[in-house]
Amino acid sequence: MSQLPEQPSEGPVPTSADVARLAGVSRATVSYVLNNNSTVRISDPTRRRVREAAGELGYVPHAAARSLRAGHTRMVLLPAGNHPAAPLHHRFFHELESGLRRLDYTVVQHGSLGLDAEEAARAWAELRPVAVVAPGGIALTPQGIAVLRRSGARAVITLGPQPVEGAHALVMDEREVGRCATTHLLERGRRRIGVVIPEERGVGVFAEPRLAGARRAAAGGGARIEPLPLRYEEESAAALAARWRTLGLDGVFAYNDDYAMLLMRALQDAGIDVPGETAVIGAEDLMLGRLLRPRLSSVRMELATAQPLADLVDRLVRNPGGEPERHDLLSARAIPREST
Amino acid sequence: MSQLPEQPSEGPVPTSADVARLAGVSRATVSYVLNNNSTVRISDPTRRRVREAAGELGYVPHAAARSLRAGHTRMVLLPAGNHPAAPLHHRFFHELESGLRRLDYTVVQHGSLGLDAEEAARAWAELRPVAVVAPGGIALTPQGIAVLRRSGARAVITLGPQPVEGAHALVMDEREVGRCATTHLLERGRRRIGVVIPEERGVGVFAEPRLAGARRAAAGGGARIEPLPLRYEEESAAALAARWRTLGLDGVFAYNDDYAMLLMRALQDAGIDVPGETAVIGAEDLMLGRLLRPRLSSVRMELATAQPLADLVDRLVRNPGGEPERHDLLSARAIPREST
Repeated sequence: MSQLPEQPSEGPVPTSADVARLAGVSRATVSYVLNNNSTVRISDPTRRRVREAAGELGYVPHAAARSLRAGHTRMVLLPAGNHPAAPLHHRFFHELESGLRRLDYTVVQHGSLGLDAEEAARAWAELRPVAVVAPGGIALTPQGIAVLRRSGARAVITLGPQPVEGAHALVMDEREVGRCATTHLLERGRRRIGVVIPEERGVGVFAEPRLAGARRAAAGGGARIEPLPLRYEEESAAALAARWRTLGLDGVFAYNDDYAMLLMRALQDAGIDVPGETAVIGAEDLMLGRLLRPRLSSVRMELATAQPLADLVDRLVRNPGGEPERHDLLSARAIPREST
Repeated sequence: MSQLPEQPSEGPVPTSADVARLAGVSRATVSYVLNNNSTVRISDPTRRRVREAAGELGYVPHAAARSLRAGHTRMVLLPAGNHPAAPLHHRFFHELESGLRRLDYTVVQHGSLGLDAEEAARAWAELRPVAVVAPGGIALTPQGIAVLRRSGARAVITLGPQPVEGAHALVMDEREVGRCATTHLLERGRRRIGVVIPEERGVGVFAEPRLAGARRAAAGGGARIEPLPLRYEEESAAALAARWRTLGLDGVFAYNDDYAMLLMRALQDAGIDVPGETAVIGAEDLMLGRLLRPRLSSVRMELATAQPLADLVDRLVRNPGGEPERHDLLSARAIPREST
């Protein structure tokens, strides 16, 4: 590892010993006060004096030193996503983060772009997190889970469409989305149903269970399912629309609202009436669907509130020995509008 | 701070001493090999033996212990955004992250939702990053910059529309976007130009400089600028469209493509011809603009490539004493389509 020059000349970094000296207390007292340890009784004036001294010197506790002393960290790792997160997931992660912070955990996001699953797990393990919440499958394999557990992670929790062996699972069962969309099309009398499969990398982990859910719903309703590969490009949508009448479909679940907007435009440009000739339904219930004409039917997805999950992470950290737990987070329902 | 029970029963966390014993080398050698220190000559067979022993035991180096020994960290903090990031920024951050990782830095994202700027800076300082790149203004104030520098950060770098005193600045000058959009409308002969100002929280930091850029361009072209507050809701857009003819505008820069789609739909529903009566231009050049009818004119934004910026961070870390540097990242150009 390359070496760095000494600290710049603006003076040394203040330490807890400096704070203790200025406040006239022991280093242990400084540590108790600044780490909000409530098990030790310290008078309010002393607490105030320590905080004032820390403020005056510009001292903040050192998370790494604290974790080395304690033998474990309070760090929870939420790996940063490789894609721009949907607003739904974004809100969920921020709720989870706030909940964990209220429980006195340090929440850190760690990217893994350009690393394979095992390299990513090793990079995370170097930070010695006490808990890791990570997308299952893509980012976290059974091998990676073992690396993290051996480095001291008490709770390894996957988040995603399917559980992964050896870890707790927060499951967002995407099959539900496909099931809802397809059931709605069946209720509208459609029996020859296309399901858009985005060709973009990394989307398969969502698209495949959505297709599986559609197949299951169709099997019950005596309908045919036709997978329709599509790139998020006008040319790809125009090519699909050009062979639409050969396919003989009367309904399509377009993966999500963005792909639905793309496909519906191509179908309309090709002279295919929506919903008369083909009904179109998206998913994720974005604002844009309401702005289209016809207004786009969609599947609204809801995630469980995140605060109880922060408590769950805390419980799993405190009791690391138990069997893998599974918690289902996702619910879905069809929002009918004009396109179906 | 609450106490945790002892490690679970699956065995102690392997240490570098365990690796050294198994490989038959010193702990220092283990450290040199696993931290990729190239200043010490170690034979290839020894390197291989150390790596095999580490693999067998499932040992990974402890970033915190390493940084305490070295007296500094190799950690660069990229605070996680409070909003779903635009694809443009998302790609930029991931390029920056890969670039820093190639330079042997550990890149960590740290959220600050629910914290004010000074609390956020203190939370980041606890991790003792060697460098921090953070959105200026919202997340990083001169006080916060001082806290980070006192805790040992060698480079504090803001990212955003404006520089902040005391820090280096990667500037994305959003005025450029407003200037481009307005200049395009002027070229189309429009002289009474509305500028949409989203009422959503946190957007002002982008909307204000876009308005300022529009004003500056209009001043040169002898045009009038009318700020138009708008919420991202159909009702808000319908209310604005209902008083459109009273406003007497012949052109509008709608902040971005999402707001442009919302407003254009409301104008069309109110019987106002686009572009005949009012020209509409968005920004960010999203796919959806090409799917609208009329096709939406937009402003395409481009960011500088991030790899040179990773080198810049590294240089600032190595030479922490210099004057604050400013680097401009954003360029913009109008993409004319049918709506103007």
